[in-house]
Amino acid sequence: MKSWEKNIRRVEPYVPGEQPQGKDIIKLNTNENPYPPAPGVGKVLKGNIADRLRLYPDPTIGSLVEAIADYQGLDGDQVFVGVGSDDVIALAYLTFFNSSKPILFPDITYSFYDVWANLFKIPYKQIELDKNLRIRKEDYCIENGGIIIANPNAPTSIYEDLDTIRYILDKNQDSIVIIDEAYIDFGGKSAIELIKDYENLLVIQTFSKSRAMAGMRIGYAMGSKTLIRALNDVKYSFNSYTLNLPSILCGVESIKDDEYFRETVEKIKITRDKTMKELEALGFSFPKSMANFIFAKHKEVSGLKIYEELRKRNIYVRHFNKPKISNYVRITIGTDREMEVLIQSLKEIIG
Amino acid sequence: MKSWEKNIRRVEPYVPGEQPQGKDIIKLNTNENPYPPAPGVGKVLKGNIADRLRLYPDPTIGSLVEAIADYQGLDGDQVFVGVGSDDVIALAYLTFFNSSKPILFPDITYSFYDVWANLFKIPYKQIELDKNLRIRKEDYCIENGGIIIANPNAPTSIYEDLDTIRYILDKNQDSIVIIDEAYIDFGGKSAIELIKDYENLLVIQTFSKSRAMAGMRIGYAMGSKTLIRALNDVKYSFNSYTLNLPSILCGVESIKDDEYFRETVEKIKITRDKTMKELEALGFSFPKSMANFIFAKHKEVSGLKIYEELRKRNIYVRHFNKPKISNYVRITIGTDREMEVLIQSLKEIIG
Repeated sequence: MKSWEKNIRRVEPYVPGEQPQGKDIIKLNTNENPYPPAPGVGKVLKGNIADRLRLYPDPTIGSLVEAIADYQGLDGDQVFVGVGSDDVIALAYLTFFNSSKPILFPDITYSFYDVWANLFKIPYKQIELDKNLRIRKEDYCIENGGIIIANPNAPTSIYEDLDTIRYILDKNQDSIVIIDEAYIDFGGKSAIELIKDYENLLVIQTFSKSRAMAGMRIGYAMGSKTLIRALNDVKYSFNSYTLNLPSILCGVESIKDDEYFRETVEKIKITRDKTMKELEALGFSFPKSMANFIFAKHKEVSGLKIYEELRKRNIYVRHFNKPKISNYVRITIGTDREMEVLIQSLKEIIG
Repeated sequence: MKSWEKNIRRVEPYVPGEQPQGKDIIKLNTNENPYPPAPGVGKVLKGNIADRLRLYPDPTIGSLVEAIADYQGLDGDQVFVGVGSDDVIALAYLTFFNSSKPILFPDITYSFYDVWANLFKIPYKQIELDKNLRIRKEDYCIENGGIIIANPNAPTSIYEDLDTIRYILDKNQDSIVIIDEAYIDFGGKSAIELIKDYENLLVIQTFSKSRAMAGMRIGYAMGSKTLIRALNDVKYSFNSYTLNLPSILCGVESIKDDEYFRETVEKIKITRDKTMKELEALGFSFPKSMANFIFAKHKEVSGLKIYEELRKRNIYVRHFNKPKISNYVRITIGTDREMEVLIQSLKEIIG
């Protein structure tokens, strides 16, 4: 190692899901939406955006912040927008998790939570899920420097009701509690309604799943003015201009078209519920999904084998080579047609 | 202060230049390009991007990384792309400045350098410029945890030649040295040619100024494979998917159209050189600008007064209320027409 190398931060980076290219691929591995974003998004992109690109975008992302705030029944100073929910959560770690006590999150959850903790050298403790992959709320009553919980959880797809979230908040009035609701629009009730009661609650959502805009990178946090102000201060110390002009304009268009949004989400839920029945008939078991994916294991065939055999057939699902969940595959809900092909292939594989 | 507030990171955020809105405004305060981006940028935005937004963008930003590498005569694994050069520099601080020794940068320079150091709790030492606002290379031969220098420097507009950069690199073989070349396309020779000799050199450029794409948020770093790999590792620990699809596609289009790029930069340089002469005739003095702005002070009228009087006339320039430079205004080069209005207004103001 050369002497200038000694100050380089060493990290074990997150490995994102494969991004296979090609026309004949059925991509059910990164929980993307099978439908396009709201029609207004395409329209605004075809307007004269290029001529305005020479100027910096609004650093406050004001129009999108206001659109989200209105939609969610909050004030503008209760909403923070970033480059996807990963950007928002990373900044939230940097802003809020500055204790010498460990932050808490489930042992099976979004695999970025420990990556961020390692990056920022934040101590953490992973709390075991129970044998049904459920969160035991009582386990979150120990000393901590903050809490982050995905609800619905990934990759389990399980939603915990607001009584559970409220219990955890009541027991942790000295900590900042982050609820990561990337999948909330596919079922369950958002913790947004708890913000008025808990100034230490930050709720995070994204345009990447239910709004079909993963390619645009928009995520947002909602909480008390104190939390949002602190997040903005850190953002302005990191990168003042984050969302580019197309993101801001398209984000607003997506929020505007609530009818399209609800229709699309409903279609995905119907396909999901149908797919759950078909998987069950094939000998799969899984938690009841409240997300746009199903976390399934088969009674005979291993998760790895299902993953590999599907891959040979150009169908990509996600397999986690990790203790406790290596026998599962996570299957994103695609179109009805895609799910038919999937079920057909699974029939072949499990023979 | 409530107990959950005690772990919030306290920062003094960077204050970006004003972003005044309105048709009759002449905006010469944030060093934006007065011309639109390459025509290909508008064309690609009007294509069918919306249908692809449901998918995550390429996390490696491969097509744009390759386009920049080809253009600059580097390999793809020597280029890192981020959400504007601010994002790239912030990640570079996090990746490379992990020493207990102070990092070094000039006392008068891009005002974000100390903001990032404060954010990440990195010790730093600001090195005085000489009385002509020039860097004294000998001052950078002290123990340090890294060096960052803007070249041309902002807001001074002064370019230091590559002998100076090479001298600093030779004397700092144990440190990582970042050269921030946001304005290099407007004059001066890039330090890119030194990358082959110095594995500890990182050169950073942006699409926001010379490529007229401030609204798109694209910046990039170039250096040895070791540095770029380390930057990517940290990026993948922070946010895997940073650049959205429009940014990636439009960035490639900008690089492709070298003729348009050169023409635009040349126009700005001609306007700049003409404006320098006119300002001189009005009693202004300034360092010879090698950027797309002029850093000028008047022999009689204060910088603050010039700033305020121009503002009354709907002309926005930048004034820094800081020791040593409070008597200057930083004037971005606009179109010829905009500069004529500016000169006319300055004539009125200085009477």
